[in-house]
Amino acid sequence: MRNQPIYDIAEICARKGITQAVLCPGSRCAPLTLAFTRHPKIQCRTFSDERSAGFVALGIAQQTKQAVVLVSTSGTAAYNFAPAVAEACFSETPLVVITADRPAEWIAQHDGQTIYQQELYGKHVKKYYTLPQHTDHHDDQWHINRVINEAINLANAQPKGPVHVNAPFREPFYPDTKETFEYSQSVRIIDEHYSAHFPQALKEKLALALSGKRRILVVAGQHDENPALTDVLQATATNLPVITSVLSNLHNLKKGIRYADSILSKIPAETEVELKPDLLISFGKSVISKNLKLFLRKFTDLEHWHIQPYATATDPFQHLSKIIIAEPTSFFEFLNNTRLALSIPYAENWRAEENRIIQLHKNYFPQSQISELDLVSRVLAKLPAGCNLHLANSMSVRYAELIGLQPHQQVTVYSNRGTSGIDGCTSTAIGHCLTSDALHVLITGDLAFFYDRNAFWHNYPMGNLRIVLLNNHGGIIFKLIDGPAGLPEADEYFVTRQPLTAKNICAEFGFDYLPVASAKSLPTLLDDFFKPDSTTKVLELESGIDLNKQVFENYKQILTQRHEA
Amino acid sequence: MRNQPIYDIAEICARKGITQAVLCPGSRCAPLTLAFTRHPKIQCRTFSDERSAGFVALGIAQQTKQAVVLVSTSGTAAYNFAPAVAEACFSETPLVVITADRPAEWIAQHDGQTIYQQELYGKHVKKYYTLPQHTDHHDDQWHINRVINEAINLANAQPKGPVHVNAPFREPFYPDTKETFEYSQSVRIIDEHYSAHFPQALKEKLALALSGKRRILVVAGQHDENPALTDVLQATATNLPVITSVLSNLHNLKKGIRYADSILSKIPAETEVELKPDLLISFGKSVISKNLKLFLRKFTDLEHWHIQPYATATDPFQHLSKIIIAEPTSFFEFLNNTRLALSIPYAENWRAEENRIIQLHKNYFPQSQISELDLVSRVLAKLPAGCNLHLANSMSVRYAELIGLQPHQQVTVYSNRGTSGIDGCTSTAIGHCLTSDALHVLITGDLAFFYDRNAFWHNYPMGNLRIVLLNNHGGIIFKLIDGPAGLPEADEYFVTRQPLTAKNICAEFGFDYLPVASAKSLPTLLDDFFKPDSTTKVLELESGIDLNKQVFENYKQILTQRHEA
Repeated sequence: MRNQPIYDIAEICARKGITQAVLCPGSRCAPLTLAFTRHPKIQCRTFSDERSAGFVALGIAQQTKQAVVLVSTSGTAAYNFAPAVAEACFSETPLVVITADRPAEWIAQHDGQTIYQQELYGKHVKKYYTLPQHTDHHDDQWHINRVINEAINLANAQPKGPVHVNAPFREPFYPDTKETFEYSQSVRIIDEHYSAHFPQALKEKLALALSGKRRILVVAGQHDENPALTDVLQATATNLPVITSVLSNLHNLKKGIRYADSILSKIPAETEVELKPDLLISFGKSVISKNLKLFLRKFTDLEHWHIQPYATATDPFQHLSKIIIAEPTSFFEFLNNTRLALSIPYAENWRAEENRIIQLHKNYFPQSQISELDLVSRVLAKLPAGCNLHLANSMSVRYAELIGLQPHQQVTVYSNRGTSGIDGCTSTAIGHCLTSDALHVLITGDLAFFYDRNAFWHNYPMGNLRIVLLNNHGGIIFKLIDGPAGLPEADEYFVTRQPLTAKNICAEFGFDYLPVASAKSLPTLLDDFFKPDSTTKVLELESGIDLNKQVFENYKQILTQRHEA
Repeated sequence: MRNQPIYDIAEICARKGITQAVLCPGSRCAPLTLAFTRHPKIQCRTFSDERSAGFVALGIAQQTKQAVVLVSTSGTAAYNFAPAVAEACFSETPLVVITADRPAEWIAQHDGQTIYQQELYGKHVKKYYTLPQHTDHHDDQWHINRVINEAINLANAQPKGPVHVNAPFREPFYPDTKETFEYSQSVRIIDEHYSAHFPQALKEKLALALSGKRRILVVAGQHDENPALTDVLQATATNLPVITSVLSNLHNLKKGIRYADSILSKIPAETEVELKPDLLISFGKSVISKNLKLFLRKFTDLEHWHIQPYATATDPFQHLSKIIIAEPTSFFEFLNNTRLALSIPYAENWRAEENRIIQLHKNYFPQSQISELDLVSRVLAKLPAGCNLHLANSMSVRYAELIGLQPHQQVTVYSNRGTSGIDGCTSTAIGHCLTSDALHVLITGDLAFFYDRNAFWHNYPMGNLRIVLLNNHGGIIFKLIDGPAGLPEADEYFVTRQPLTAKNICAEFGFDYLPVASAKSLPTLLDDFFKPDSTTKVLELESGIDLNKQVFENYKQILTQRHEA
């Protein structure tokens, strides 16, 4: 059968453990659509807006911890995946993007849905492949099999990420109505076996280097939930300050420092000296806290080791001197077992600052007037055990980082911090909620919410989705940061005020709409909101930019009060 | 002033005739935002969804017949322009895309909104430029000035198209609140002077080649309105069959053949012989009619000349043998003045077929039951003089091509046929309607309409916009073409049924919602719809795929009845 090698792509995917495919409608991609939809081991879903579809696939890959296949027809359909592909690149999420294309001879001939699909996503994919146009020669079949095996292996190799397979198809695209096909039982599978190795010789060398360090600071970036790592770090955190983020998924780390951003806000010189490390050890991906980054960047004599299981690390603190290629769990086991000559007051200084912020929060929240910051504090406090928390860019994730999660909370946190875009936050959360029975809570601002409103445009139930919409009718961040706030252009060209509320979207998609009417009714409203149900619920707080700006500045002001410490 | 060379970008743009800029919100792009918004000769508008913003800029460039500046902040914001950039590439629309970027040293360092912006749009831009990060050396200033001059010149050179200028900025992005700046009065401007030349020696050579041709067929692709060209072609069309499309904007060509697609539908062999040309002369961009393309491709002995004012033509009929680099108007003036040895019956055969379809339409429309095809015929017949008609992909433009516009109609027609995507049809129409006082009528299907619903998410009035929404709750084309219609996957994975109507969107954005209730009330509804008003109006026909499929197949069936011809 002419398209047998194409149909067998689905078989290879299934045998390599792929269970999820996201398809977008089109004619050119029909052989791929049939290959995946008819495969008994692959669950397919279809989304008409490819931009949203790309982010849904990203969310599914994160939730299922597997590579996800993402298919489009030719033309700008494929190009609409680009924002999600870029996020997958920087968030290290495995996607196997397969785009149908016209055959090479028809590119740029003023005929049909055609763009330049070769190398379409540039450096945002780990590798680009073109499938052969002909499939009848044995070597063509070998070529297709090898490419698909390699593409999946590469997507799953550390650091994980997206790969792009461009598949040119000639007509006819469709089999006869009653034609059936079988998947080949003999497809060749190429497996890649990975082994992270942290050799003894390196451990000895590092132990020697560590023996001279007295003020070791550990910083965790964005990281997947990993109970073994959390266990190992419990011991580490009793001796060293371990700074975590709400995105590190280390909420259960009892002695973690979770308020570094607040601690380091307008820090006095003498405190800065007390908190300054001589060795910074980091792991994970990006760090949200700008205060932390500025604090660490300013020292000229700071050594920085970064721990990750693959080569080539980033240098966000500008002091990187050792990249230690190991699993963080292995490294911190080694660290826990290494004799260190630590300064005791160093960890105590950080702990004292942490306690100061914890006390401040206790006194500060909840407030009588509902602001966005206050609502986020109430929502985080009430998150049901076992739920997933999704944080949209940009203020939502910042609010949540300020508030933090507590050690008893069983919550997994996700956020598109690879590129920090607002373009697919809702779609990504929906990818998660379609492939998990947990409750999924998305906290989002109005710009991110309306930008990605096509996230809801599909036919799959999302009764486990809860959305907290912080609607200040514009991009509030431009009023909170220095620079744009006072310019005459601020409202029109930076904040870009917008009048919409979620009411019409809720009516359109059959969601429960829960507007926040008053501080008094909020506790009951939150109870309703979190109650299990078969319907998506949207809790919307409409509040003025000025109020939120005032609360935010007030909070920042209080942070700097150190007389109680 | 540090950013003076950046502010002067706006001055260069203004002096080179650019009057329109589309800006998207962001911090990194603040120097560009200020440069353009404060310039007295440039009108700025802002849109929060960059995908939509890109298409709005495309529409503005088409309507104003000028290059438009399109600005974004860094990260996936810039990547969301990609679909519009691809359409601008293939529709030959001049866009100067300026993307703010992080400085080179901060790319891919897990810090902020950063992607790989170099060469971001691949081959879809005519050229990619990076501005220098430093602006204080004289050579940096010379560099910026030269790049902006060249970028605008290149965007405007034939074939027109998009260019990309990536602009890395370090903090601080903002001037002090009360700081003002002046545009330099001495900015250097580099002009490019273009002269299309159609030399006498070439004319003599072509005249000789033409003297042996008896059956010359002229085919017009998509083309801007051009009254001088229409005038010249009036004479051509009295002697030769001149096939036009609704997108050729040659409606006023009295003897044009506008129904080639219908004429060539299931054409009998003897008619095919009668209509077969020995020389095909084409101009303009893509041709919609698949029947016409298949008809022309099948002859092995056909010569094809394509007329365009620049080098390198496409070959959509697979017979291209001469590319004649000249303005079509000059070429057809020459052709009108050349002695030809034409077969008289050849043009008469085409005319007879054309008359057969015209008579068929007279008998067929309007129908008692409102289908999409019937509604399009009624809408086209009632279009007010001077209006602009925008045709979305994919069935809307096909319906309109079947119905056609009549020689007395003063209507300019636009459609995104560069890449034939559904992703920005509404946004493009809105770009037109924001920069013109004419009435703008968009005919669109439900998938294109909801896909691009963020087109409405801005603060600019659109009282001159009228939308005809053909809502069959899915992608009807997959039921009309052979192949997917009978497959078990057809509804879920090809048609992708969707339940929405325009009612909620109209409520959300304050549009008048005019649902089509009955054939009887339709004439009054259409009168209301076209009436001038300060409000956008949406006329929605909800109709079943089955009804429309039946009407479409019936129409196709009737087309083949030749006994009256």
